[in-house]
Amino acid sequence: MNKNKIVITTGDYNGIGVEIIIKALQNLHDIHPFISVIGNKKIFEIFQQKHGLKLPDTIEVLDIPFDVNDYRPGKESAAAGEFSFRCLEHACKLAKKSELKAIVTAPVSKNALHLAGHNFSGQTEVLEKFLAHDGQKAEMLFCANNFRVLLLTRHVPVSEVKIDKELIVKKVLRLQVAMKNNFKIEEPSFAICALNPHAGENGVIGTEEIREFQPAIRELRSSGLKINGPFPADTLFAGAAYDFKSGIQSYDCYIACYHDQGLIPIKTLAMDECVNTTIGLDILRTSPAHGTAYDIAGFCCARPDSMEAAITAAIKQNYS
Amino acid sequence: MNKNKIVITTGDYNGIGVEIIIKALQNLHDIHPFISVIGNKKIFEIFQQKHGLKLPDTIEVLDIPFDVNDYRPGKESAAAGEFSFRCLEHACKLAKKSELKAIVTAPVSKNALHLAGHNFSGQTEVLEKFLAHDGQKAEMLFCANNFRVLLLTRHVPVSEVKIDKELIVKKVLRLQVAMKNNFKIEEPSFAICALNPHAGENGVIGTEEIREFQPAIRELRSSGLKINGPFPADTLFAGAAYDFKSGIQSYDCYIACYHDQGLIPIKTLAMDECVNTTIGLDILRTSPAHGTAYDIAGFCCARPDSMEAAITAAIKQNYS
Repeated sequence: MNKNKIVITTGDYNGIGVEIIIKALQNLHDIHPFISVIGNKKIFEIFQQKHGLKLPDTIEVLDIPFDVNDYRPGKESAAAGEFSFRCLEHACKLAKKSELKAIVTAPVSKNALHLAGHNFSGQTEVLEKFLAHDGQKAEMLFCANNFRVLLLTRHVPVSEVKIDKELIVKKVLRLQVAMKNNFKIEEPSFAICALNPHAGENGVIGTEEIREFQPAIRELRSSGLKINGPFPADTLFAGAAYDFKSGIQSYDCYIACYHDQGLIPIKTLAMDECVNTTIGLDILRTSPAHGTAYDIAGFCCARPDSMEAAITAAIKQNYS
Repeated sequence: MNKNKIVITTGDYNGIGVEIIIKALQNLHDIHPFISVIGNKKIFEIFQQKHGLKLPDTIEVLDIPFDVNDYRPGKESAAAGEFSFRCLEHACKLAKKSELKAIVTAPVSKNALHLAGHNFSGQTEVLEKFLAHDGQKAEMLFCANNFRVLLLTRHVPVSEVKIDKELIVKKVLRLQVAMKNNFKIEEPSFAICALNPHAGENGVIGTEEIREFQPAIRELRSSGLKINGPFPADTLFAGAAYDFKSGIQSYDCYIACYHDQGLIPIKTLAMDECVNTTIGLDILRTSPAHGTAYDIAGFCCARPDSMEAAITAAIKQNYS
């Protein structure tokens, strides 16, 4: 394999991964020389027989063992969970040997991962386990062109979302580095969402804004960072929506406290262009912002837009 | 006063209320005969002297005592909090005497209300205190045309958001009544957001979906209600966004668990058309979906779109 390639992992074969990889690569002709797929040739052949859609011949497929009897689109299984894990693990092995430019991942089912005995809450955590060194941490950044949202917490129940000063400072400093390294933005500007409605309204609806956010922002600013907030999240993203339509964002990145607070606005505004980006590791990883979509798997009706955006983003940051 | 009128309360005079009321009423010529304003003539005169914008002559203004020395746009004050409270109280008195069709409220500052000794977390709670009878409860519904979002919890810190089966059943049953009474939809369809990311992913990220949501939905369905979910909120609203662009919603109302989960999508998608609607009381109340906007008060640059939408919604539901 060419050492300067980007690999796409197939993810859960009973989801829509195979379908969106084929469709995306059919649409993105020019980039075939840069791409390899980690999955199994047999899966792509089955898909072709059933639906007539073919992975372009020039795309190399690196095989992970696959039991054809477990291929049941729409069904969650331990075997598919194991397969999706091993795709990712293989990508990480290549990355560690510096044989990759970037990893693009098709969706996995966290539940299937758990059924297979891999207790990770998502692919980001798997990547972190295999690739982080010297205290590195993986962070989840969602991007739709220049509208970017970082999550301070990820796959956590709402009742367990806790934001403190240390967390904010640590993650924003990491984000600052990624904005320079991955996005070539030397002096990025950030806006941070409050945790509570109306930014706590001076302590009337929650005190984290006063206790944790304000000291964190003071500290970051005194280190020279450009950061504003905490802002009421609904108002902040209403403003970002106006910006998005104009194409010019007021901030280089928005910082959300938890999963839905960050993902609702970017998916509402730009589902098709939305890319899940893992920053903080030596290698960049991108992914479509949707899940396995078991409910439509096998019907060949999935839209490859987000996968195309993920591949394009990986290409753009490595070859331009 | 004509007994079939809609009143607009001025809210916090140091916010943008006066400005957006004038601008909205200048734009909505045809509805002047239906409107009275609760505020103070003097405030509107001061605004006219400063900015040249005039409340239409035909609009009746009902006076609430006002100290001209406290008129300082952008400044929070106990006196402005007291005034905003008394505007609302007066509207409620008229409503109780059945002298009103609807109440439209300009924004108040919850902190100013607190400074004035009124410990309410918002206007909805004030209306509920004065107007609810026989176990009625006020509920917050946000509407942008036919995209509607109900909040299960309102001005609550994220750490205190608790959703249980009883709450869901109770609120959805109330919503069902309002959909019939206020929106003339006989068999409304509902989609409910999960509390946790990925709808808890089968208990892996939180258990409320299994313990509380699923039994609640079964119970509501067995009573004949059309309700689906719990759905991951980011995916659900991404779908609603596609619907919004087409003008046809898949559901008559979306149900969100907490403030930001419901307000981020509707404001991101349709800030200018977004109307805060109080349902569950005998009288309907609408309000723009933004706050006092102290930061731009006094500059005459506020957009009246959301206030216009609030007035238009109140008119539409009472005179058409």
